[in-house]
Amino acid sequence: MAKQPELDDFRVPYFDGRKKSKFSLDDFDPAAKPFSTGAKDSDRARLSEIGAKLDNLQECLHAQQKRRVLLVLQGMDTSGKDGTIRAVFHEVDPLGLRIVPFKAPTQGELAHDFLWRVHSQAPAAGELTIFNRSHYEDLLVPTVLGALDAPAFDVRCRHIRQFEELLADSGTTIIKCMLHISKDEQRARLQARIDDPTKHWKFDVSDLDARKQWDKYQAAYRDALAATSTEYAPWYVIPADSKTHRNVMVAELLLRTFGALKLEYPPAKESLKGVEVE
Amino acid sequence: MAKQPELDDFRVPYFDGRKKSKFSLDDFDPAAKPFSTGAKDSDRARLSEIGAKLDNLQECLHAQQKRRVLLVLQGMDTSGKDGTIRAVFHEVDPLGLRIVPFKAPTQGELAHDFLWRVHSQAPAAGELTIFNRSHYEDLLVPTVLGALDAPAFDVRCRHIRQFEELLADSGTTIIKCMLHISKDEQRARLQARIDDPTKHWKFDVSDLDARKQWDKYQAAYRDALAATSTEYAPWYVIPADSKTHRNVMVAELLLRTFGALKLEYPPAKESLKGVEVE
Repeated sequence: MAKQPELDDFRVPYFDGRKKSKFSLDDFDPAAKPFSTGAKDSDRARLSEIGAKLDNLQECLHAQQKRRVLLVLQGMDTSGKDGTIRAVFHEVDPLGLRIVPFKAPTQGELAHDFLWRVHSQAPAAGELTIFNRSHYEDLLVPTVLGALDAPAFDVRCRHIRQFEELLADSGTTIIKCMLHISKDEQRARLQARIDDPTKHWKFDVSDLDARKQWDKYQAAYRDALAATSTEYAPWYVIPADSKTHRNVMVAELLLRTFGALKLEYPPAKESLKGVEVE
Repeated sequence: MAKQPELDDFRVPYFDGRKKSKFSLDDFDPAAKPFSTGAKDSDRARLSEIGAKLDNLQECLHAQQKRRVLLVLQGMDTSGKDGTIRAVFHEVDPLGLRIVPFKAPTQGELAHDFLWRVHSQAPAAGELTIFNRSHYEDLLVPTVLGALDAPAFDVRCRHIRQFEELLADSGTTIIKCMLHISKDEQRARLQARIDDPTKHWKFDVSDLDARKQWDKYQAAYRDALAATSTEYAPWYVIPADSKTHRNVMVAELLLRTFGALKLEYPPAKESLKGVEVE
């Protein structure tokens, strides 16, 4: 019988100070469905089951007001960042979620260091925050555009590790997911958007330019992930050609992460015992 | 046959510059269920139906990136602000929602004018933002505590009207809901929290102090609503002793508000016609 896959098989090896790790995105098949239950219907049922658990765990996180959780979602255009958020968090109370989309930085933001706008959005005690894109864009985009050379890239990676260590040391659990799709799957998804005029608002011609740089983006992703996967802020590669698989795997990862926090509701208040409201 | 209730029957009369309007909260029965379909099951079905429509409308709002929508939720402790958000927006994509809880202002916030922290949270183009409590707390609490006299109260009301007019003139649709519960219903809900030790974390002893000031809070609410219900930012009184009724009525109100915006998806882009992705 084949070995059951484990979430840690999809974790990018921790950065050990050496620039050239043997980690390669090519070792991960975007079309794989290791965490699928075997059928779409049962995947959806599993997702719903995990969603209800995440809802409870999130309430517990909020009740405690101690820990913070940060989920970072990255991936090429059409890799399904929005869809993941919609599907995985459907059962979670919107009161307990904060979703932060990062667009191209504005002039005002560029007048600061690249982590300034990100730091201000870090989760507070009791919060579950999702970064929809993140500070990793500031590694990827300028690298592909040729505006960030290798030494400057390394410096940014170091700053990111130190920044994430600060968050972790301050009570934040960080998980980072790269939604990994194939070039063919991206073509199909982009074409579907073009062919449906009601979806044109989702489409920007620059998406096609970014696609032309596919290989450069994949290389930049590899280097970024290899240099910033750490014990306190690990990266996971999520095979994402199948949307249901992608959703189930991200949900399983969150469920395990929350489980490791051993969250409990705060104890009853003795002072309230026997109180009658007038 | 009795006249069917209309949402506008629950709208607080627009402020006309005179301090003493005949508006009274006593004219609204907290236990009424005017927008209930008649049974809890069918109310839940109706809520789910409206939720799916709101999800589409919110996507359309986001696609257009023009209008903004702001829902302000106010009400006494246990009136159900959290529960309303959870129930009404269950079907809405969490990507399209931003929920802003306002707690007691910090020292840093008090060093600014009372609208400073609120303005920074106003919805951006394409956003649906919910204020869970709001700038109205800065009218109600200091009034009840005796820290805001009548002339200062009037000045704050004027500043609020002018602030909301600025938002409205800049493309924001504002609706404000006061979740109206009876004193008896609040007793039952507070007692239920006390009697369940696993809910103690939701309970603060100061909730009992606020309850002792019930009449003063009701009077402050009356005055605040009367002075700040305007054509561009109307207040609605939501009978809220029944949770399902409360949820359905807020959902109906939002549905009508979104409907009035006549949202449409942006037109197809001619430049994308026939494009083949390579």
